[in-house]
Amino acid sequence: MESRLTILGCGSAAPSLLRANTAQILEMAGKVILIDCGEGTQWQMLKRKISAFKIDIIFISHLHGDHYLGLPGLLNTLSLYGREKPLKIFGPKGIKSLLFHNFKEAEIYPNYEVLVTEINNKKSKKIFEDNEITITAIPLQHRVPCYGYHFDNNHYSLKINKEKCDLALLGFDVIKEFKSGNDFVKEGVNYSYKDYTAPYHIEHSYTFITDTLFLPELAPIFFKTNLLYHESTYLNILLDKAITTYHSTALQAAEMANLCQAKLLVLGHFSSRYPQTNELLTEAKIIFENTELAEDGKVFIIK
Amino acid sequence: MESRLTILGCGSAAPSLLRANTAQILEMAGKVILIDCGEGTQWQMLKRKISAFKIDIIFISHLHGDHYLGLPGLLNTLSLYGREKPLKIFGPKGIKSLLFHNFKEAEIYPNYEVLVTEINNKKSKKIFEDNEITITAIPLQHRVPCYGYHFDNNHYSLKINKEKCDLALLGFDVIKEFKSGNDFVKEGVNYSYKDYTAPYHIEHSYTFITDTLFLPELAPIFFKTNLLYHESTYLNILLDKAITTYHSTALQAAEMANLCQAKLLVLGHFSSRYPQTNELLTEAKIIFENTELAEDGKVFIIK
Repeated sequence: MESRLTILGCGSAAPSLLRANTAQILEMAGKVILIDCGEGTQWQMLKRKISAFKIDIIFISHLHGDHYLGLPGLLNTLSLYGREKPLKIFGPKGIKSLLFHNFKEAEIYPNYEVLVTEINNKKSKKIFEDNEITITAIPLQHRVPCYGYHFDNNHYSLKINKEKCDLALLGFDVIKEFKSGNDFVKEGVNYSYKDYTAPYHIEHSYTFITDTLFLPELAPIFFKTNLLYHESTYLNILLDKAITTYHSTALQAAEMANLCQAKLLVLGHFSSRYPQTNELLTEAKIIFENTELAEDGKVFIIK
Repeated sequence: MESRLTILGCGSAAPSLLRANTAQILEMAGKVILIDCGEGTQWQMLKRKISAFKIDIIFISHLHGDHYLGLPGLLNTLSLYGREKPLKIFGPKGIKSLLFHNFKEAEIYPNYEVLVTEINNKKSKKIFEDNEITITAIPLQHRVPCYGYHFDNNHYSLKINKEKCDLALLGFDVIKEFKSGNDFVKEGVNYSYKDYTAPYHIEHSYTFITDTLFLPELAPIFFKTNLLYHESTYLNILLDKAITTYHSTALQAAEMANLCQAKLLVLGHFSSRYPQTNELLTEAKIIFENTELAEDGKVFIIK
């Protein structure tokens, strides 16, 4: 099954009416994943008709306001609306005390468990794994501790042989069991899922790299990724500014896409000095043709 | 001179696309005052073309996210854009540690002084005073410590006698000096401001009451206020809910306006269950005719 990335915000720190602060929803392997949660993310989700209730896990890159300030409000809203399912949050050291300090002062007692894991690895490290998906935290170089995330959807799934099911007059309930790899008994007859399904391999990945100096040495970690979202705060003419503020340029994002042989590069985290982002796209395309611009509300299919 | 109140957000905690979280700009006696700063206030200011740079003082009612979560981001933006003028912030106990905890984790070092005063008074108390304006913090009753604010603009100003100035061929520079109560010397001649101006009395006030049980005993504190903004989270049919969540109804807001003999009542802090707020207005008008609804972007002139 394909994955789906929705850009909720792709602006950098200074607020702009053209784009919201960083936040994205990745729907992968049946999970709804929120990546970063800048101020106002709740409203961006309402606008895009994405229910905050469905979020399974949250990943925060770093503790600059434009990447996390929407989090306390979002967690409070989930509590107001009666979420009960525990919520996993991954982020750099400090995120736990920040969240719980906000909760304490505002006397917020979420009625669901908030399970915060603080990341502190100096090298890339697998931080989450289940049968379908592996998630790696990638240390970046910014003014504060900052992590990129690589989401690898790599597993076997079962494809239903619909014709065979129809012939045996097996309905939706049975198909659901087969899809989960379970056999089914109907009127004393045992139907094995193996007879009605064929295994197929799902493999695609998404890489999220924001707020960092250009780090070419990272390319092997997400080699041949299907979609690389890479920050491009500035045009390369402002390379000095990019370096002193620990950011990247559009040209460098394209260099990274080239090095890791990404299928598609999506540029984002644009400085508010660029009301139009066409120049950033043109610059990146010199080096890496298959580049697109992030835009609030834009959806990318990954498969 | 008249004062001007701009509603930036008038929704309650649960996010809604119809209205932003609480924030208002009061322009009074030459000062730009921000009252509350819910998540997303920066964007509301951009939308209304109000420069965050001009803010002189900020007052926060309480530390629920929908009233303060926009503050760290706003302060960071001011720093990004190079504000140098110190900024005064008043709010309940805890606001200082919350702000500085955010600064610490995000490694934000504002390049201007952030002067935070924590309010902790159990009775109404004057917390700010200069030659033109007196500001009183009014303890309310909510689930966390919460304050209303009363802004009293009461002073004498100088009205220029333009005819006399024209006759004496005195230009803009001179008028500016006269307005500030200074004499002016031109070609050896002394012009006294007293000869070219007349004193006149300015007196009007604004009262901001949000997130509280109905507290009729407060009426004397802002008796005959020109504009009373009073929360009306619910219709009176939900009085039980209002009481258990420490909020007020539209009917109670009107009762308060009646008791304090306000000139105008503005209802706000509407629950997201009311996409249309007409019923709240109708309910309030039964008791207090001169009532209006707050609305994001709406401006009220106080004189």
